[in-house]
Amino acid sequence: MSAVPPGLPDGLFVRGDVPMTKREVRALTMAFAALRPEDVVLDVGAGTGSLSVEAALLCPRGRVVALERDAEALALIRENGARFSLVNLETLAGEAPAAFAALAPASFDRVLVGGGGAGLGAILEALPALLRPGGRVVCNTACLETTAVAAARLRRPPWAAFACSQISVSRGLPAGPLLRFDALNPVWITSAELETEP
Amino acid sequence: MSAVPPGLPDGLFVRGDVPMTKREVRALTMAFAALRPEDVVLDVGAGTGSLSVEAALLCPRGRVVALERDAEALALIRENGARFSLVNLETLAGEAPAAFAALAPASFDRVLVGGGGAGLGAILEALPALLRPGGRVVCNTACLETTAVAAARLRRPPWAAFACSQISVSRGLPAGPLLRFDALNPVWITSAELETEP
Amino acid sequence: MSAVPPGLPDGLFVRGDVPMTKREVRALTMAFAALRPEDVVLDVGAGTGSLSVEAALLCPRGRVVALERDAEALALIRENGARFSLVNLETLAGEAPAAFAALAPASFDRVLVGGGGAGLGAILEALPALLRPGGRVVCNTACLETTAVAAARLRRPPWAAFACSQISVSRGLPAGPLLRFDALNPVWITSAELETEP
Amino acid sequence: MSAVPPGLPDGLFVRGDVPMTKREVRALTMAFAALRPEDVVLDVGAGTGSLSVEAALLCPRGRVVALERDAEALALIRENGARFSLVNLETLAGEAPAAFAALAPASFDRVLVGGGGAGLGAILEALPALLRPGGRVVCNTACLETTAVAAARLRRPPWAAFACSQISVSRGLPAGPLLRFDALNPVWITSAELETEP
Repeated sequence: MSAVPPGLPDGLFVRGDVPMTKREVRALTMAFAALRPEDVVLDVGAGTGSLSVEAALLCPRGRVVALERDAEALALIRENGARFSLVNLETLAGEAPAAFAALAPASFDRVLVGGGGAGLGAILEALPALLRPGGRVVCNTACLETTAVAAARLRRPPWAAFACSQISVSRGLPAGPLLRFDALNPVWITSAELETEP
Repeated sequence: MSAVPPGLPDGLFVRGDVPMTKREVRALTMAFAALRPEDVVLDVGAGTGSLSVEAALLCPRGRVVALERDAEALALIRENGARFSLVNLETLAGEAPAAFAALAPASFDRVLVGGGGAGLGAILEALPALLRPGGRVVCNTACLETTAVAAARLRRPPWAAFACSQISVSRGLPAGPLLRFDALNPVWITSAELETEP
Repeated sequence: MSAVPPGLPDGLFVRGDVPMTKREVRALTMAFAALRPEDVVLDVGAGTGSLSVEAALLCPRGRVVALERDAEALALIRENGARFSLVNLETLAGEAPAAFAALAPASFDRVLVGGGGAGLGAILEALPALLRPGGRVVCNTACLETTAVAAARLRRPPWAAFACSQISVSRGLPAGPLLRFDALNPVWITSAELETEP
Repeated sequence: MSAVPPGLPDGLFVRGDVPMTKREVRALTMAFAALRPEDVVLDVGAGTGSLSVEAALLCPRGRVVALERDAEALALIRENGARFSLVNLETLAGEAPAAFAALAPASFDRVLVGGGGAGLGAILEALPALLRPGGRVVCNTACLETTAVAAARLRRPPWAAFACSQISVSRGLPAGPLLRFDALNPVWITSAELETEP
């Protein structure tokens, strides 16, 4: 079991040149994912694996599949998993949604989607088949259009319990005796739950 | 043990007319508090107890003391604790820092401070005596002056590992086919760790 | 000529129950409109007319047409125009884009578009015919989908010089000796210029 | 007279290595300054002179004194003034508040203060002597402590009409067909008016 709540300090992860989900966004992604100890989780476009690691720590009796197409990022995910001695985090090389074909239907409790770009609509379209009834998706986006796609899809059946929050964080940086603020780029976190009765 | 990560939906709490820490801020407060299962936690100015409840769920082998001066709020804390069947959440009536006299020195691992107003400086001044070495404080403020007090005090010895983030959340509200955004007021989360060697 | 820069205090306008563009957003709308003293301006969905008034003050040798479908709002526009003794602000009852039929082609230097809802795409589609070459449009939106429509349309020919800024303002409210912050809902300001060579 | 409202595109100014007030903040600073065509304006810590230029354009029958201690910045102010062919913008080398000794009492209608650092309290203390009755000050700050100093001083006599807004801007950056958002650091704009009857 995780010794601490999610939202681990950024410095605990290796990231190379791969963009990493920031601490504050990781904490909120886990909150909206409402992960339970035995959940089976899919992290789509896992990047550095920082969300996968947080999820794996929260699901000690479940497991996390980190799907990622980039070889450098896949190596980072494995390295970050090893840093936290995780035995319930596995990687899957490939690109969504094509790579979903390798996954069993109705086998996931939670799906995390990062970014997604032009393929986001197709990814979200494919998720109901992968999720168990009552399963949840949490989608992090940084662009207007991908957020609009997520909001449009996740607001209607078979999805329920739609939520979408824009998060803007500014971090205080000591400047001598003063504290100035360094703004992180805004992120949208969109989430929904698969209806139990389709 | 908590079945889910912190940042529970707001609707799970009763709040009466007492201002409540919003879901997103609760999740981030817990992240910066870095609570461990056996931690003993003090929640100063606990309000509705929503932070106390989240902390108590994360510390099943520890306990949480919710300090609050207002009688109506104290009743809400107890009601919220009962909703989550918590046996490790207790209330203490009184105002900080005077009420700290009833607490044993060096007995807390984590202290959460909400608001604080004009008394915040005196509260923060008294915390090193209450905390165990390596203990952490997380201070949520909504005002410029109280944030400046927290930032000034927690940036210097005996404190280390200072961090201060301003969080601005806008929640998407469906308006027919559109999604408009409702801004929550910004909150600053300031945290630090008591040096192990004073 | 305007005695002051745009961004007049909100309290100078009457608004009834009609939503009004806030001071900070008005100032920035005028900045992105880059109004010149002799410009002819169309304000689409003028609401209280607060943007129309600011534009009319900045264009003393030009004029402003405030297009609005709601009778109560039309009365407010006239009242606000009278408050500032404007002789270059006229109202036009009707809904965009249908009401554009009453306007001469290529007769406007600047068009301001507020909100727009489901009709925004059609409104933006009709604007090149109304604008003179080199004319500018500034579109204020509060919803994800309308912003995405504005960003998609105004980023491609016949438009150039695309810009889109999200503005979040929090106003300080004295609370005794403290200053707390009251967040206004975020607004996107999207602007572009009609290419001189189509 | 200015051909356009304030909030000129950033690219119109030369800035070298000197930090420059961003377009959106310049527009709002001018709005809160409520400049009139004949105003005499002091710009304290003028930096690149971008605020001075905007003020000089708005005050064609008045003049602007740009006070700045850094030699490189002073050269930039002159270069930016020349770019806009301004004859009513002059520079003054020196550091506030010491350099105020060279200025005639009660000779300014408006004072703009940028940053200020540790000296901000002393600068604000000295302003009532420089301003004419009814004169206004607008103070832009990026740090918690300097904002608190401005808010504390400008909220009490001899100041009236206090306002303080935090402005957060995120600029849309096209990323292929998508628009991602790049956050500028938050700025506080604090303003007040000198009481006419002390």
